[in-house]
Amino acid sequence: MSTTGRDDRGMTVGVIGGGQLARMMIPAAVNLGIELRVLAESDDSSARLAATAVGDYRDLDTVLAFAETVDVVTFDHEHVPQPVLRELVARGVPVHPSPDALLYAQDKLRMRERLSELGLPVPAWARVATEQELQAFLDDNRGRAIVKTPTGGYDGKGVRLVTDPAQVHDWLDALPEGGALLAEEVVSFNRELAQLIARRPSGEVMTWPLVESVQRDGVCSEVIAPAPASAGRMAEVAAEVAIAIAEDLGVTGVLAVELFETTDERLLVNELAMRPHNTGHWTIDGSTTSQFEQHLRAVLDLPLGATGTRDRWAVMVNVLGGPPQGVLTDRYEAVLGDDSTVKVHNYGKQPRPGRKVGHVTVCGDDLDDAVYAARAAAERFMA
Amino acid sequence: MSTTGRDDRGMTVGVIGGGQLARMMIPAAVNLGIELRVLAESDDSSARLAATAVGDYRDLDTVLAFAETVDVVTFDHEHVPQPVLRELVARGVPVHPSPDALLYAQDKLRMRERLSELGLPVPAWARVATEQELQAFLDDNRGRAIVKTPTGGYDGKGVRLVTDPAQVHDWLDALPEGGALLAEEVVSFNRELAQLIARRPSGEVMTWPLVESVQRDGVCSEVIAPAPASAGRMAEVAAEVAIAIAEDLGVTGVLAVELFETTDERLLVNELAMRPHNTGHWTIDGSTTSQFEQHLRAVLDLPLGATGTRDRWAVMVNVLGGPPQGVLTDRYEAVLGDDSTVKVHNYGKQPRPGRKVGHVTVCGDDLDDAVYAARAAAERFMA
Repeated sequence: MSTTGRDDRGMTVGVIGGGQLARMMIPAAVNLGIELRVLAESDDSSARLAATAVGDYRDLDTVLAFAETVDVVTFDHEHVPQPVLRELVARGVPVHPSPDALLYAQDKLRMRERLSELGLPVPAWARVATEQELQAFLDDNRGRAIVKTPTGGYDGKGVRLVTDPAQVHDWLDALPEGGALLAEEVVSFNRELAQLIARRPSGEVMTWPLVESVQRDGVCSEVIAPAPASAGRMAEVAAEVAIAIAEDLGVTGVLAVELFETTDERLLVNELAMRPHNTGHWTIDGSTTSQFEQHLRAVLDLPLGATGTRDRWAVMVNVLGGPPQGVLTDRYEAVLGDDSTVKVHNYGKQPRPGRKVGHVTVCGDDLDDAVYAARAAAERFMA
Repeated sequence: MSTTGRDDRGMTVGVIGGGQLARMMIPAAVNLGIELRVLAESDDSSARLAATAVGDYRDLDTVLAFAETVDVVTFDHEHVPQPVLRELVARGVPVHPSPDALLYAQDKLRMRERLSELGLPVPAWARVATEQELQAFLDDNRGRAIVKTPTGGYDGKGVRLVTDPAQVHDWLDALPEGGALLAEEVVSFNRELAQLIARRPSGEVMTWPLVESVQRDGVCSEVIAPAPASAGRMAEVAAEVAIAIAEDLGVTGVLAVELFETTDERLLVNELAMRPHNTGHWTIDGSTTSQFEQHLRAVLDLPLGATGTRDRWAVMVNVLGGPPQGVLTDRYEAVLGDDSTVKVHNYGKQPRPGRKVGHVTVCGDDLDDAVYAARAAAERFMA
């Protein structure tokens, strides 16, 4: 019923990609009276309620036709090819983040090069195109490296721990002319942190509190906001790093900066994501402004919202895979009945091993209680 | 894109009526992964994003066809005729609230009769079918009465302050055979309060904090949660009254009990609404569980959520009419830029004098600050 002609009464944001990030923009858009239109991959996408088109985001004509129906284009993911993005810009479509910025989220080698140029703290790294180059890096880094494909990886895919160049011979063999892999030192870290920030085109930035992110098998499983024992200088440095990246790279919308807190208490930039991010899902229930509302405000160049926590702590736990049989709603009686404060987010996706199908958030004044309640709720969905 | 066949993977709630109450159920439904389907009055309804059908809610075939696509039927308003509701029930469709309960929200005379039978505190009232009967009531009540049409009134419509029976001769003349008006004493009150409660079919009830509601020209203009100086016995009485009404009338879903706090500090029941209510809009931003999420949980007979306030105070101010020219989004730069904590809710309706087109909520620890900020934001939308 929202597929009638362009609404000239308000503001229309187009999202390329129909995953859960696009889905979670829907509540924010409904509240603000912003029309959200999604170019989805399939009829059954997580964001199907707001899907006004279904098609291939790599196809220029598909994307151009979609862009004509909206005021600004933004993204559920970072996979839209640069030539498509640049053609949109050439035709005058506002695209946020811009292709120039998005490049650094799409290509980890360029990201490392750029952050190094800017003097920002990153792990030791090298561009490696041959087994010899990788061996040289291993020799300089105690015989171990994290090797990544520069593009296309996410949630642990495209990442390998390597002690011998032969372990990535398939990736090296498949490199295109002039291509390379990214080799990084194996960082000794205490924990992983994430700094979320939003920036609007006219310059305003707002950072949320620094959070701790617990990864399991390369996938985010749990986020604690704010990161315990992160007050003072560490939080300041994380915010400064995120602001520097957002401003120097010209990022618009939400930017997630994933960080390592090293065993010698430095912060190193791990990855960048230029969109709402799993480490920011807690903001829906835990912050005055959710990352999804903030992203919409930012890409429309509207003033940004307050980013403080509502309670002392917010704990988010992902629901990975879902129940062995049935669907998430089958467990609502148990989950909601067990704790009246748990906030359930169900992405409307078919359960499948390892798939992110939802998350739960518990906010409160006691961290142990919140962690226990959030984990218990997530477990009930997965057991 | 959500108009494909019934989704057998989850839960589907059907809402009759496409106003802002149905619209504000959308975010809650998206979060919980509940499919929401709306039978709207027009293509341009406030809840158009979730509208899967457009038609007349008074037409049995229209409503029956809609009901076949959902697991449970609930409402954006109380105007669906009893014969239509009863036919739904006869055909086995779960309807919440039930026609038996809804009757008391549809017909103010029956409501007054029933609450009086239950011994609940109500203003002095009488059923009046003639000028003589009304004059007798006036004579017993210092010559003044509030006269209401039993059905169809809302937001000040169908309500008159009367000192002479001739002032409602048009209503009396138009009474159907056996019909009557409701005459009520003009209550001397300090303020108006509202007690919101939810009840699920299996019996669980949850009350939100008692709130103060400021009316202007018969329309709710402002809500303060919790009601100042309402701790202790007054809050207990209000909750007890609401629980008694919900249980005795068998209400399912959200029930709003509008109350007078009389100048001699009694609570009297003014009106009932069996659906999310304007006096509960603050819960979206101000409570752990919004009235819209709670309503969905209740009508699906799921466990209810916690109803505490997130901050010490939440202040909601309605945006009535909207700007003299243009649309609400034209004012976002000013409103959002002025206060980063204000939460804006835009119902996607065309501005028109007096029309409820949105609301703003500000939460915080200082009541004066929150009231000031919320009023300032609403004014910016209306000036």
